[in-house]
Amino acid sequence: MEIENTESTGRLQPALVHGLAVAIMVACMAEISGSHFNPPFTLAIYLCGGMELNMVAPYLVSQLVGGVLGAAMAKAMTSRENFYKASGAAFALLQTDSDIGAAVFGEVAMTCLVTMVVLLGAVNTTTRSPMVPFMVGCTVIINILAGGDVSGTCLNPARAFGPAIVHNYWVYHWVYWVGPITGGLIAAVLVRLLLGDRKIRLILK
Amino acid sequence: MEIENTESTGRLQPALVHGLAVAIMVACMAEISGSHFNPPFTLAIYLCGGMELNMVAPYLVSQLVGGVLGAAMAKAMTSRENFYKASGAAFALLQTDSDIGAAVFGEVAMTCLVTMVVLLGAVNTTTRSPMVPFMVGCTVIINILAGGDVSGTCLNPARAFGPAIVHNYWVYHWVYWVGPITGGLIAAVLVRLLLGDRKIRLILK
Amino acid sequence: MEIENTESTGRLQPALVHGLAVAIMVACMAEISGSHFNPPFTLAIYLCGGMELNMVAPYLVSQLVGGVLGAAMAKAMTSRENFYKASGAAFALLQTDSDIGAAVFGEVAMTCLVTMVVLLGAVNTTTRSPMVPFMVGCTVIINILAGGDVSGTCLNPARAFGPAIVHNYWVYHWVYWVGPITGGLIAAVLVRLLLGDRKIRLILK
Amino acid sequence: MEIENTESTGRLQPALVHGLAVAIMVACMAEISGSHFNPPFTLAIYLCGGMELNMVAPYLVSQLVGGVLGAAMAKAMTSRENFYKASGAAFALLQTDSDIGAAVFGEVAMTCLVTMVVLLGAVNTTTRSPMVPFMVGCTVIINILAGGDVSGTCLNPARAFGPAIVHNYWVYHWVYWVGPITGGLIAAVLVRLLLGDRKIRLILK
Repeated sequence: MEIENTESTGRLQPALVHGLAVAIMVACMAEISGSHFNPPFTLAIYLCGGMELNMVAPYLVSQLVGGVLGAAMAKAMTSRENFYKASGAAFALLQTDSDIGAAVFGEVAMTCLVTMVVLLGAVNTTTRSPMVPFMVGCTVIINILAGGDVSGTCLNPARAFGPAIVHNYWVYHWVYWVGPITGGLIAAVLVRLLLGDRKIRLILK
Repeated sequence: MEIENTESTGRLQPALVHGLAVAIMVACMAEISGSHFNPPFTLAIYLCGGMELNMVAPYLVSQLVGGVLGAAMAKAMTSRENFYKASGAAFALLQTDSDIGAAVFGEVAMTCLVTMVVLLGAVNTTTRSPMVPFMVGCTVIINILAGGDVSGTCLNPARAFGPAIVHNYWVYHWVYWVGPITGGLIAAVLVRLLLGDRKIRLILK
Repeated sequence: MEIENTESTGRLQPALVHGLAVAIMVACMAEISGSHFNPPFTLAIYLCGGMELNMVAPYLVSQLVGGVLGAAMAKAMTSRENFYKASGAAFALLQTDSDIGAAVFGEVAMTCLVTMVVLLGAVNTTTRSPMVPFMVGCTVIINILAGGDVSGTCLNPARAFGPAIVHNYWVYHWVYWVGPITGGLIAAVLVRLLLGDRKIRLILK
Repeated sequence: MEIENTESTGRLQPALVHGLAVAIMVACMAEISGSHFNPPFTLAIYLCGGMELNMVAPYLVSQLVGGVLGAAMAKAMTSRENFYKASGAAFALLQTDSDIGAAVFGEVAMTCLVTMVVLLGAVNTTTRSPMVPFMVGCTVIINILAGGDVSGTCLNPARAFGPAIVHNYWVYHWVYWVGPITGGLIAAVLVRLLLGDRKIRLILK
């Protein structure tokens, strides 16, 4: 919702807004829902044994519904122009096919990083930390500051899906499904094979 | 008291000042007074069973007195022009009736969010967290960054009341009572019906 | 040491540098020295029963020596012009006698606030918190952001003393002794009479 | 990776990106590897009895390999010009021999500070703290804000080594080995002689 960024603050405002919002939501909802609002997180948590298979689909559906509700509320609240600017990188950043390679790679790498923080901070027993809400939030902040102009730092298909539905605009939309989900899967594989503790790691026990 | 913001930092300075001040005050006073300095918080905490009815009025009176004292101190300390700029959105942002709808909606939505963080972080047993001062402070930061130009992000009738008394200026003042209190009540209802634990939730036990 | 602030970031850089430096030093040294690097803190902690009388003088001397060493190191490390800019508000901000009233009041009010956070977060038993390093650091951040142009937000006579010795420049130097020490004493009185727990409070037990 | 800093935000963006990235990595990996990604940290931790001698070389090799992999990934991901800008101070800041004295001194002083925080926050028993990831991260932030234009605030030979390999550019490269390692050694000496607890201190027991 960083609808009024002034140019001169660079990406500091959107980075802080998104990162701190994630931190607060994770902290508030951890004991209520587990606080995963992002399909790649849900898939990676399931693959690392952190949730049951039958809960995966309800989570994914809730995330997409949440994305659409959020986009609709933002539309109701702001001017046409500001809402368009806040609709995400598929609308503003990606203009030609030549940008796609870097954007997909950026989404993969950055979603992999933040999913790894989620898995290590909240699922993996030896590395679990009460600071995980702020660790995940800070990872979002650095991803936006470092990679904002590579891919728009979406990291979440549900966040891309909402504005896409509201605008009925699907150009480059697949980038924000393929990138984040690939990144989440790579994070799950890294934790299962390398970084996880004995309980989670499948090899080298 | 963000009386000397430079244009070029956008809303980063006021957001950090207000958010961190809230975090510190909540942390320092939690064991002394419960740290609710805002009428919507007091009402919502009472409605969720977090305090006795006979304490509600003394809290509300203290909050309003505090708002007036704060405004008077700021007036003593700063130049006429800077004090006017710091007096809040009713003085500077709302200029025509056409702005009111969005301002009220913004105050409702943002106060609802921050009150929900207060209720989940400090009242609701399963989600209570020692990090609640920083969670509330960060919510204030994101509200100011995201919604500062929609409503001025007051969220607190006592903060609006102080400068209104000192200037004897009441235009659009009601916006900062109706918006925040409605938002606080919605948060209390959401926690009582949906988000609270068994002890707080009235239904679906 | 915020010797290279660009104009366009307002006071964000000096605020973050000073506030976070205080947080880190307090966190690192708490178990070694108690982490009070500031005469008003030492006086207020003594007045609230947090340290023995015979330790007060050694702390004050160490603080002043530290201030001089810091100023000398900064002089060695930076250009003449940058060092002058970093020498504090007595050198740059206070230019005429008409600024003094507000500067003294600002130093009193802001040092009172940060000393209160120190006393409540580190000395007073019921409100003590492991987050106290970050609470004190954040109070420094908000003081610099909110009051930087009122008094330069020194808050610490030792920090003023160092550059004054190195430059042998004593104009308005007394402001940064009278203001902070008065503020620290008021904080100690408030905690002793009003905010402290039964053990610390002298009245209303 | 702060490849897209706008001029107007000064050093706030690189400071936050690097500092928060360090905080997150330290928090995630503490139980997996001990989270030291920097040769001076490894040497100082070994000298203070925090690790076995036979682990020192594997850590140093991993750090250098990590530096090269990171530089190679950044090269793959960004434009030639942006990659060059992100390659560090040896490429951009140090232009003449007259800058070297201050740069070496800056690297020594700042690496000494951050290594001291690592040793006190993670190795020294009486001062150990669960907040150490954020303490180290915040020290990086203040080092970049305060000393960014003195030496480029590298603090880590591995971070300098990566881009030097990838560009095959070795001018002034030694500065970022001599400075940080000297700083780390001084920190270890200070902790061993002065700041450490009885178990670590070699004298004055």
